[in-house]
Amino acid sequence: MENDEVILLNFWPSMFGMRVRVALAEKEIKYEYKEEDLFTAKSPLLLKMNPIHKKIPVLIHNGKTVCESLIAVEYIDEVWNDKAPLLPSDPYERAQARFWADYTDKLYDYGRKIWATKREEFEGVTKDLIDPLKLLELEVLGDKPYFGGESFGFVDIALIGFYCWFYTYENVGNFSIEAECPKLAAWGKRCMQRESVSKSVPDPHKIYEVLLEFRKNYGVE
Amino acid sequence: MENDEVILLNFWPSMFGMRVRVALAEKEIKYEYKEEDLFTAKSPLLLKMNPIHKKIPVLIHNGKTVCESLIAVEYIDEVWNDKAPLLPSDPYERAQARFWADYTDKLYDYGRKIWATKREEFEGVTKDLIDPLKLLELEVLGDKPYFGGESFGFVDIALIGFYCWFYTYENVGNFSIEAECPKLAAWGKRCMQRESVSKSVPDPHKIYEVLLEFRKNYGVE
Repeated sequence: MENDEVILLNFWPSMFGMRVRVALAEKEIKYEYKEEDLFTAKSPLLLKMNPIHKKIPVLIHNGKTVCESLIAVEYIDEVWNDKAPLLPSDPYERAQARFWADYTDKLYDYGRKIWATKREEFEGVTKDLIDPLKLLELEVLGDKPYFGGESFGFVDIALIGFYCWFYTYENVGNFSIEAECPKLAAWGKRCMQRESVSKSVPDPHKIYEVLLEFRKNYGVE
Repeated sequence: MENDEVILLNFWPSMFGMRVRVALAEKEIKYEYKEEDLFTAKSPLLLKMNPIHKKIPVLIHNGKTVCESLIAVEYIDEVWNDKAPLLPSDPYERAQARFWADYTDKLYDYGRKIWATKREEFEGVTKDLIDPLKLLELEVLGDKPYFGGESFGFVDIALIGFYCWFYTYENVGNFSIEAECPKLAAWGKRCMQRESVSKSVPDPHKIYEVLLEFRKNYGVE
């Protein structure tokens, strides 16, 4: 594994790309990072490596590509299985982790409704995002430090990129996730104290800045 | 495992429910089948066992529930790992199988556009379904007997329920999938010769009959 070639095609604000970066960092895997500027055009390399969905993140391991972020995280966990297990070993616990990781994907559309919506059309939009976050807090996280219990794992990785977007959701939507979901907010801060997370995700303020620019350019501000 | 209690909540025409039935049959697991009549109302048991999505299929194993069909198939493969492996053992092959199984999910919306659409609004609708089927045939199946190669496995299970709907898509949409995707059609017939499949899926004509009834009742015929 020492001589493995690992490349990640990514776009820095992507919550999906962050999942793969954090998983690679948890496993202490060195990799070459290639930024895709999705504001301009998709690179020939991205189109070649992910011809089906044409999306980042794309993990390239010794020339073989793995697409779709949660699939890539499972792949990383299976290949580099000597440290920092990300999925639980028990089949039922694994199924639950897959269920909730999959559930976090739906946050994208709810979040997008906020950052891509004109302020005068906001009624009900923030509730659509808050409700699943509350559900995750009450039904899954509870009083545990991480979603899987004592150890940082698959569901934490699935959700941590969205946490980096909370600042943007809150400031565009003018509401407080922390007020609604205090335990979830504390979980996010706890995750950010991990080196694997802090060195792999961008500053939430930077995401907000880029989003404000986007909203101005697309006439939704 | 001999004394395990396995229950499946299902609705017989569901292509997602068929996945779990076929996986259970491949593993030769005895289970109690409970039909949910989704044409009328969702049962209190379904709402209790899958409060998040309120959807079938739900697998209940010794009182623990596993929701989402592909997650349930992986769970079955992990728990009953003594026979008929469904996912490949190699991590890269597993990632590929997960990618393509996940890809088949999108067929649902394309198929629905056909069976829930008025005939006068059909332009372009069948192409939306044919294109991904062609891609599956050309890029993944090729000349292999099954999607994973020589053995029936995860992607076959993911797609087989849709194959049972081909007759409905074709007759409602007035086109031939076999003419467009002959290898895929041959794959479907091959799968139907397996006892695990033939005894787990409904007669495609019966699905078509129910759909015609649905179309009449909802004014799209």
